[in-house]
Amino acid sequence: MKIRALVWGENIHEQEDEIVRSIYPEGMHTTIARAIAADGDIDVSTAVFQQPEHGLTGEVLAATDVLVWWGHKAHRQVDDAVVERVAERVWEGMGLIVLHSGHFSKIFKRLMGTPCSLKWREAGERERIWVVNPRHAIAEGLPEHFELEYEEMYGEPFAVPEPLETVFISWFQGGEVFRSGVTYRRGAGHIFYFRPGHETYPTYHDANVARVLRNAVRWARPQGAALRSIHNAPNIPVTEALEPIVERGPKLHKPGEEGYR
Amino acid sequence: MKIRALVWGENIHEQEDEIVRSIYPEGMHTTIARAIAADGDIDVSTAVFQQPEHGLTGEVLAATDVLVWWGHKAHRQVDDAVVERVAERVWEGMGLIVLHSGHFSKIFKRLMGTPCSLKWREAGERERIWVVNPRHAIAEGLPEHFELEYEEMYGEPFAVPEPLETVFISWFQGGEVFRSGVTYRRGAGHIFYFRPGHETYPTYHDANVARVLRNAVRWARPQGAALRSIHNAPNIPVTEALEPIVERGPKLHKPGEEGYR
Amino acid sequence: MKIRALVWGENIHEQEDEIVRSIYPEGMHTTIARAIAADGDIDVSTAVFQQPEHGLTGEVLAATDVLVWWGHKAHRQVDDAVVERVAERVWEGMGLIVLHSGHFSKIFKRLMGTPCSLKWREAGERERIWVVNPRHAIAEGLPEHFELEYEEMYGEPFAVPEPLETVFISWFQGGEVFRSGVTYRRGAGHIFYFRPGHETYPTYHDANVARVLRNAVRWARPQGAALRSIHNAPNIPVTEALEPIVERGPKLHKPGEEGYR
Amino acid sequence: MKIRALVWGENIHEQEDEIVRSIYPEGMHTTIARAIAADGDIDVSTAVFQQPEHGLTGEVLAATDVLVWWGHKAHRQVDDAVVERVAERVWEGMGLIVLHSGHFSKIFKRLMGTPCSLKWREAGERERIWVVNPRHAIAEGLPEHFELEYEEMYGEPFAVPEPLETVFISWFQGGEVFRSGVTYRRGAGHIFYFRPGHETYPTYHDANVARVLRNAVRWARPQGAALRSIHNAPNIPVTEALEPIVERGPKLHKPGEEGYR
Repeated sequence: MKIRALVWGENIHEQEDEIVRSIYPEGMHTTIARAIAADGDIDVSTAVFQQPEHGLTGEVLAATDVLVWWGHKAHRQVDDAVVERVAERVWEGMGLIVLHSGHFSKIFKRLMGTPCSLKWREAGERERIWVVNPRHAIAEGLPEHFELEYEEMYGEPFAVPEPLETVFISWFQGGEVFRSGVTYRRGAGHIFYFRPGHETYPTYHDANVARVLRNAVRWARPQGAALRSIHNAPNIPVTEALEPIVERGPKLHKPGEEGYR
Repeated sequence: MKIRALVWGENIHEQEDEIVRSIYPEGMHTTIARAIAADGDIDVSTAVFQQPEHGLTGEVLAATDVLVWWGHKAHRQVDDAVVERVAERVWEGMGLIVLHSGHFSKIFKRLMGTPCSLKWREAGERERIWVVNPRHAIAEGLPEHFELEYEEMYGEPFAVPEPLETVFISWFQGGEVFRSGVTYRRGAGHIFYFRPGHETYPTYHDANVARVLRNAVRWARPQGAALRSIHNAPNIPVTEALEPIVERGPKLHKPGEEGYR
Repeated sequence: MKIRALVWGENIHEQEDEIVRSIYPEGMHTTIARAIAADGDIDVSTAVFQQPEHGLTGEVLAATDVLVWWGHKAHRQVDDAVVERVAERVWEGMGLIVLHSGHFSKIFKRLMGTPCSLKWREAGERERIWVVNPRHAIAEGLPEHFELEYEEMYGEPFAVPEPLETVFISWFQGGEVFRSGVTYRRGAGHIFYFRPGHETYPTYHDANVARVLRNAVRWARPQGAALRSIHNAPNIPVTEALEPIVERGPKLHKPGEEGYR
Repeated sequence: MKIRALVWGENIHEQEDEIVRSIYPEGMHTTIARAIAADGDIDVSTAVFQQPEHGLTGEVLAATDVLVWWGHKAHRQVDDAVVERVAERVWEGMGLIVLHSGHFSKIFKRLMGTPCSLKWREAGERERIWVVNPRHAIAEGLPEHFELEYEEMYGEPFAVPEPLETVFISWFQGGEVFRSGVTYRRGAGHIFYFRPGHETYPTYHDANVARVLRNAVRWARPQGAALRSIHNAPNIPVTEALEPIVERGPKLHKPGEEGYR
């Protein structure tokens, strides 16, 4: 069964900026989607900011295994209810790949619980991406390092939680370093942040970047059905205890009562 | 210099429920505060839900090294702006100890990025807390395990991110287990979640529990001054690059422009 | 392409002890191998302690994707050279599943760098295994918890490094808890330790245990070719530096010289 | 009570090489020891390879809170029994700071369980060390980054386990990156690996490096008494079970018997 990926694009720079449009004439999301679809084992669709509910309805998300997110200028305009809906799907098991400027997206900050801040410089400098975790599924088929001749610099400290595993670290010509590929799990969902992808450079046309995207989608696919129980906090009756116990001591709650949230 | 701890109590059950009042006649926060103050190396003050801004003004938080949080019934009534203020202070370095039902507090869920759900049963059953990380600073001076004869059960799965380190795991009489002591870092701030502390039992009068609280406050104290820079995402000018680089390629941003959030 | 699993059995208790033989008449390794082969996507072979080089020649290991290890009485008799050979293959990417008493095997201690000690009691007590990381690939298809009515107790503290992810925690009838399913990576190799499997009980005939074994083998399969470069520490000549640099300052090593090990 | 640090130096290059002697006329260990002693809260002594038992007798180690290790040329000549003794003390709680070429020391490889390999180049190039975990105790008082104008390059992939926390990442002039400050726990002992310190450059005279060393010693100090129980695997009699259980099922071991190792 094919993995179902959904590439979400903000789709604003491509409409407003001639340079970005010239690199991504059909939108960044389209180029990203084609890169992911290239091997034929992943079904890819796209959604954009401008659609109703940003194209991320409950129905669409329920049919999505892995969501890929590129956003930048409109972070604040993304609807909070949609963000919460995406977070819930991640907790249930949907994979999430956050790209580049998406470090400041509401959904990434929501799931990290940190500011996700960093340094930046838009100077078209060279970035060299080192694989620090060789044979990690996300690095499959990559060389020891690869270069993006023109990229925006992102510099440490990157205010994210300690990753589950660090896969890539970038070297920048101007003297900075950055943890460019980091993994997390939130509930049943896998999350991968991948740094490259400034809108004024042809990053998503790069073969190594494309491979990382495909690898990441495969790595982040759900294992098993949606974990709906993660939203619940069941009050287990004494009579259903796995080992026989006798209720004792003072109580606050009535039998079958729900807990406070 | 003494560590400055602030114990925050919801202070509702003590007012409404005769049983809770009988165990904690001066409020749970007062008992917790005394437990923390017992060794004399920590200055402890208290704040409660009912105060203006829940007693957690910017000034108060700026003078707090470690915040200890007990909340339950009024989770939803805690002001969002105060929650955000506390989160910002944690990122800057303030320690945070979250107790028991605080797993569902806004501040804990905000910092974890997960639902923080779990199973529960209020049956006054026996809990045995095992130290799985002996000589961790938070377990200092504890025996290999200790018991709380009457406690509420919390059962796995506990929907939190993989901890930095797991310190305690609980055994429950009714057949469940729980990761009862788990550590995290968010920005510059240390976070410790400690499970025990149901309001209808005398848990915070227990000597081992009191020791855990003191240890945790010491462990979570900030290292150095508040990390205010964590809120910024500076645009580093090419002219200030650490290594000489020449700007090239197309640009989206103007010099000195701020990034999008 | 099928995953190639190799089940290594110590094969001593089955020969010496009537009880063990009655449960595992063809050897524990055979039962374990059949459990792993049940879905048909994994090719399984076996090797035993009594074979030359314990059946773990370089050739055999080179053709193994995932090695499953059950040992107990003869830990000390396992040849150090074979242990080192297995460790090298793990670093290159071979998966390793260590079962039960294998916590004290040379290979597990070698890869953990810790004593791997624990408490134990052979009393046929009930073990309840909780999935604390639902939808982890290793927990796929399992219920929230499952029971082994007769098992040996293993109790914390378990002297292993903090796991990459904790998948299972066990509750024991006698009052202990144990981290029964823990994951690690060492070099390119995935490692999973799984607690159950005392030789005098029919644990490896249990359907849930069998499912864990299959899941674990799939999870631990290598990603890509053997990472032979992990054994090298190349001296990168200045003339091959990725960025042009000029050699300067005093030197200890001659050009092309190997480093000290 | 002062922390008791012991600086272990290989003390060979200083004896054999004029350049190294000119930078460290009293030995590298002496310079390192002085850097650590500078604030007055740490008692520092030294030991060298050439002493009987390399100066690391059981008595010496028992009186050591944190051991700092610089070795290179004589890695293979370090006595295996001494290595095992040091490992045991780490498991019991002694801190261990491994410096630079110590990545290939027997003790570091023993505790990591990996090859600890890396790339290297001795060209006196510029290293810029970034603090990626600001306000970590080991980074206390440091600027956001600092430079060592002349250093040996170490490049990724660095074949170590995923760290507990990554504190520093280095940028190198020639195009590489390296995780230069990484933390681990093994048993009760804290371990910190710190990259800089090639013998032909004056690295240990650098004020920032000295501060890292002092911070690391404080961070790695033991919490509580030596954890001798980590070496044991006690057979807990049924009669001493914490919860009443009845022995049942077939047994392999006799009452009070020791387990197999």
